[in-house]
Amino acid sequence: MALDRQEGIGSVAGEPGSELGVIEDVEVVDVRFPTSAELDGSDAMNPSPDYSAAYVRLRTRAGETGYSLVFTVGRGNDLQVAAIEAMRPLVVGQHLGDLVGDVSRLGLSMTGDSQLRWLGPNKGVIHMAAGGIVNAAWDLLARRAGQPLWRLLSELEPEQLVSLVDFRYLTDALSPADALSILGDARAGRDQRADELVAEGYPAYTTTPGWLGYSDEKLATLSAGAKADGFPMVKLKVGASRRDDLRRLGIAREVLGEDYLVSVDANQIWGVPDAISELDQLAVFSPYWVEEPTSPDDIAGHAAIRRAVAPIKVATGEHVQNAVMFKQYLQQGALDVVQIDACRVAGVNENLANLLLAARFGVPVCPHAGGVGLCEMVQHLAMFDFVAVSGSTEGRFVEHVDHLHEHFAAPARIERGRYVAPREPGGGAEMLPASVEAYSYPGGEKWAGALGAS
Amino acid sequence: MALDRQEGIGSVAGEPGSELGVIEDVEVVDVRFPTSAELDGSDAMNPSPDYSAAYVRLRTRAGETGYSLVFTVGRGNDLQVAAIEAMRPLVVGQHLGDLVGDVSRLGLSMTGDSQLRWLGPNKGVIHMAAGGIVNAAWDLLARRAGQPLWRLLSELEPEQLVSLVDFRYLTDALSPADALSILGDARAGRDQRADELVAEGYPAYTTTPGWLGYSDEKLATLSAGAKADGFPMVKLKVGASRRDDLRRLGIAREVLGEDYLVSVDANQIWGVPDAISELDQLAVFSPYWVEEPTSPDDIAGHAAIRRAVAPIKVATGEHVQNAVMFKQYLQQGALDVVQIDACRVAGVNENLANLLLAARFGVPVCPHAGGVGLCEMVQHLAMFDFVAVSGSTEGRFVEHVDHLHEHFAAPARIERGRYVAPREPGGGAEMLPASVEAYSYPGGEKWAGALGAS
Repeated sequence: MALDRQEGIGSVAGEPGSELGVIEDVEVVDVRFPTSAELDGSDAMNPSPDYSAAYVRLRTRAGETGYSLVFTVGRGNDLQVAAIEAMRPLVVGQHLGDLVGDVSRLGLSMTGDSQLRWLGPNKGVIHMAAGGIVNAAWDLLARRAGQPLWRLLSELEPEQLVSLVDFRYLTDALSPADALSILGDARAGRDQRADELVAEGYPAYTTTPGWLGYSDEKLATLSAGAKADGFPMVKLKVGASRRDDLRRLGIAREVLGEDYLVSVDANQIWGVPDAISELDQLAVFSPYWVEEPTSPDDIAGHAAIRRAVAPIKVATGEHVQNAVMFKQYLQQGALDVVQIDACRVAGVNENLANLLLAARFGVPVCPHAGGVGLCEMVQHLAMFDFVAVSGSTEGRFVEHVDHLHEHFAAPARIERGRYVAPREPGGGAEMLPASVEAYSYPGGEKWAGALGAS
Repeated sequence: MALDRQEGIGSVAGEPGSELGVIEDVEVVDVRFPTSAELDGSDAMNPSPDYSAAYVRLRTRAGETGYSLVFTVGRGNDLQVAAIEAMRPLVVGQHLGDLVGDVSRLGLSMTGDSQLRWLGPNKGVIHMAAGGIVNAAWDLLARRAGQPLWRLLSELEPEQLVSLVDFRYLTDALSPADALSILGDARAGRDQRADELVAEGYPAYTTTPGWLGYSDEKLATLSAGAKADGFPMVKLKVGASRRDDLRRLGIAREVLGEDYLVSVDANQIWGVPDAISELDQLAVFSPYWVEEPTSPDDIAGHAAIRRAVAPIKVATGEHVQNAVMFKQYLQQGALDVVQIDACRVAGVNENLANLLLAARFGVPVCPHAGGVGLCEMVQHLAMFDFVAVSGSTEGRFVEHVDHLHEHFAAPARIERGRYVAPREPGGGAEMLPASVEAYSYPGGEKWAGALGAS
């Protein structure tokens, strides 16, 4: 569906005909943080990640810059950088408004490129690369509008939002009319919810205490701290050892009490029967949800696990490759919690589709965050969901992990266990130039020494 | 499941302890053919592909070389090359037998690498890269054994074959015991079927007449030629224009008669409701199967289409990213024909899982080929399926397209509409050194001129 520029995003993308809105360059930097040294981020499938970002700067002829990043966990970040660079010829010379506002053109230029799509289609590094550029374009538009991304999106009209979605593979579950109806229903009360958001923030939960590599003492101390800080839920990594899982969940329950929400995250380590038997063992600790119990590609497997482990909720999404997969997860009743990720899919536009799909099926969205920059980015989508899509924070929280925020120009802020609504213009991904320089790989000062020493 | 070396593939991988079996280098070349100039390969989603290969040469310390390739359609082939190169540190220094024979080790070293898997997992360029290396290793093993790959695989014992499969995410549909039972049942008659294969070849069908970019006259002439050459089925590309589809199917039916098999291939252009309504229009020409009617990620969508368009069969697979997806396609009754691709998944090992899954559900495998090198490679898997897995060629054909075979050391051979069983040692992917050099991109002589002139 081609966008009619007059009812689309053109109005916030500058004058359609202006040469100044044309994209002049896409710059990508390989930035990596040596998090493996501290076992921050360690889970059953990722014993020692180096949180990394393929960091994108999109520049227009007018001299404006939009920032975004694609999160990875270390090796292969260079490949993600190369994938974004492969998009450059399709993007440079295009008008910014076309990239974000004209779905048919976006499809044609990136996710639908007739040769590049063989490498996916709509999945993996090539799809995340499109997302990196789309998100940078949205960041730039928000800066131009002088608004945080969540507010820019929340103030678009339902028709404008619908025009941003590629419905090609979604209409059997979500038609443009369905989407318009959802957004129309949420139109009432938008301003009130935006005010409420600014006053009270958005609910968060924390994974900070739960990394597999942490000692029992650190787990206990950080769990108690999380509760004291006002977080309503703590999430623990599980799946490497049943004995360890039982001991660690016991510690968490002892510290946190029976009524506190404790979730577990298996990071895909189990097959379907294993997931069911392991969760049967862990059920005595009443986990609130189990995250990624098996392959993110196994929709039917998640459905079978969900049926077997209820009332434990099933959550997934950080590795769900696109809206076609989320559509099926929802159609098949395969999950209780949709965990969108800011960087996994083709950017704000596809995440808008994911939010609409979740709303259509009445399933809450609890975004995946942590990593580096994910908290900063995905909070905008959750806040937009509250203000203008689902209209609710019931059963919803954004993940939070308290590291690497110091590298961002506008770090995510938590007060009393809630994300503070950003006021700074943009989408949250801008990093401090000094951090980009110091952690650029392999040449930055933080790596030159480390690599030399190893 | 770790492989016990004694009952695994170790016996064909050389002495386990031998230093000579250690991988010394992986070399990857970006090879592209300017097929877009002739509209060979043009379909609804790929108007002008340049058939390309990330061409792999794997060398052991003993000086042996194994060849494989990952097929792409042009832009992005450099990214596929880079993805394979990203595997190099995980592979160089490893023993060849470990790569192909020890599932837990293979998983750990490539598809399961804790950092690289973030870029998939198990999908896209990173997954195809693992397949490129695994396939090169199998090519080398077959050369060492002096056998074509189909025969090497066919002569392995059921226990050895089962040990090659990663069952982690498959056991709810296919357990090791199920696999052993399938392979055990096929044990009887293997030699007889191998002899039959050598004598009579394996059924093929042709897509040569059906590219969208061909004129009506070329379609008619090539269709008549295909029938005269003994092919039992012709496949036409559809989906760009209903009028064109109706006219072209009419031409094919007129030339080929009512009883001849004519299939159609939409290359993912439709959404689910569109696919159903378009096929309702095309049904008058009695297509045998519809291939890729919608997104390859939409299992439920394929199931809905299949229910609606019967008796037209639903086929898909060239973009099905891994065995977890094929598992669900089969569990949900979403297809009639499994179209494995030699290069899409993590090589021979994962395609063995795909063949076993198809056999478990009684669904025929009709591999995707064409492109460059795919006929040469995938014929081995179909022949192995006949000899040692499904034991049947009923309702089975391998796709054939008659271009670019001249660049291969052992080109696929067709006689009377059937693939001739290869006798040359290896897996089929070895290209002529002169072709690799001339078509290497962008430096090869075939490109230096073309790029300079444009």
